This record gives sequence, C-alpha cells and structure tokens, in this order.
Amino acid sequence: MNEMNGIEAVIVGYVRSPLSNRTSAPRQGRDTAQEAVIEVLQVYGEALEGIGGWDQLLVTCWLHLAPRNILKVHPKGDATKPLSGVFGTRSPARPNPIAVYTVDLLKVDGSRLHVRGIDAVDGTPVLDIKPHVRRLDD
Amino acid sequence: MNEMNGIEAVIVGYVRSPLSNRTSAPRQGRDTAQEAVIEVLQVYGEALEGIGGWDQLLVTCWLHLAPRNILKVHPKGDATKPLSGVFGTRSPARPNPIAVYTVDLLKVDGSRLHVRGIDAVDGTPVLDIKPHVRRLDD
Repeated sequence: MNEMNGIEAVIVGYVRSPLSNRTSAPRQGRDTAQEAVIEVLQVYGEALEGIGGWDQLLVTCWLHLAPRNILKVHPKGDATKPLSGVFGTRSPARPNPIAVYTVDLLKVDGSRLHVRGIDAVDGTPVLDIKPHVRRLDD
Repeated sequence: MNEMNGIEAVIVGYVRSPLSNRTSAPRQGRDTAQEAVIEVLQVYGEALEGIGGWDQLLVTCWLHLAPRNILKVHPKGDATKPLSGVFGTRSPARPNPIAVYTVDLLKVDGSRLHVRGIDAVDGTPVLDIKPHVRRLDD
C-alpha cells in the first residue's frame, strides 16, 4: 500500500460544547468535568445502536483548528522545556490533528451522546466512536 | 464548520508485521505478544524526537482493508449475537476504519519503533503516534 498518498476520512458527527475557541479550552479533557454532546449525523445514526450499554467510550476527533506543519513543540506550551517531537507529546499540533478522548457516557438522547471528558471546541469534527475496553486500552 | 465534508489525512508511516492478511490477524492487539515495527516516513522523522522516553504509546492506524459501508455487525463476528451498531463495538468495519492501539514501546531504532500490541497487517497506514498517559487514557 505504499502507493497510497492520502486518506479521505468522513465526518460522522460534531462536538457540541460551551467551549468556543482554543483559548478557553483546557489543555486536556480529563482535567475538566465539563459536559459536552457528541451529535452524530443522521446518516450514521444506526451505528449508535446498543451504545448505551457502555460506561466509557473512546472518541476520536479531528482538531480542525490545530496547525499541521509543526513537527516539534515545547511540551505543554512551556518555552523553558526543550523542544520535543510532536509524536512524543499530546500537543494538538501534529501532521494529523487527531485527538483520542476517553470519556464517560452520561446519557444517550437519540443521536446525541452526552459525555464528560472532551475539551474540544464547539464544532470539532468527530471521526469515530468506540467502547473503551480496559483490557485493550489501559 | 458544518460545511466540511471530508478530511484529508496524511500517512505518517506503516506497520511492518509478520501478519500478511486479515485472516491471520488476531481479533485484538493486546491478545497477542507479537512484535511489530512502526516505520515512520523520513519526512516525519523529526516528530519522533524524544519518544524513547515513553513506555507506552497510543498508535492510531487506518485499517485500509476494512469495509466502510457497514453500520451494524454481530459483535466479535459471532452470528448468534444480535446485530449491534458499529460505534458500540471494536469491529474494524466502521465509517472511518480507525484503530487505536495501546502499545508497549520496546526499542527505537532511528525512525523504526519496535512495539508490542498491534495486530494490524503488514502495510497498514499509521496516522498518529502519541504517548499513552494513564491520567488521560485509563
């Protein structure tokens, strides 16, 4: 598959959150008890069936506001720390600005998932949702 | 950002593994002690700097062989189990066939990361690599 150059992902939903910009966003999701809603697009609604049986989910988002052309950052934005490659950090800046959140599923309301543990700003595209399974993810 | 339709991700590397097809692949990465190599493309090599300081990584792959048009599956491929929406399962079949692996980092050899815990077949595209952080991911 070395001839593949890019990958076309689809948006399956959006984060709905009181956070409207990156400045107001906390640095990491688990640092905040803030609730957010994952609004899954109608066309993917069927894929949610049975999700209410899980307590925790892994939610993959595309951080559309993050720069993609930065390969080194100061960890945690602290300029006194030496530059580190982005793959060794949780910075949103990376070639594919993919965030993986472990969230608590609070309520399922049709195609809206109420969750705790996402710090993404309102309107952030969601790429995937799956159960968090301790044996696999811890 | 509702006007966005698709997202163009880049391939940052490939999985190198003795697994050559989906039939020989175990159902989940943590079930196997098999080692694999993540071969990061030269152009992204700088992003690896400092990664050797981490014991565990979260590796995001694009399961290029998985069907994308299936919204419901029998969990674990067991036809006696009722159909479930793919977002409530860890099936590779999903609108964006994204896998998130928690892997042990065994050795860094230039732009090759030797890891344990990935069941993806040889040639699977890698989208992202980040440290696994217990506070965030467990």
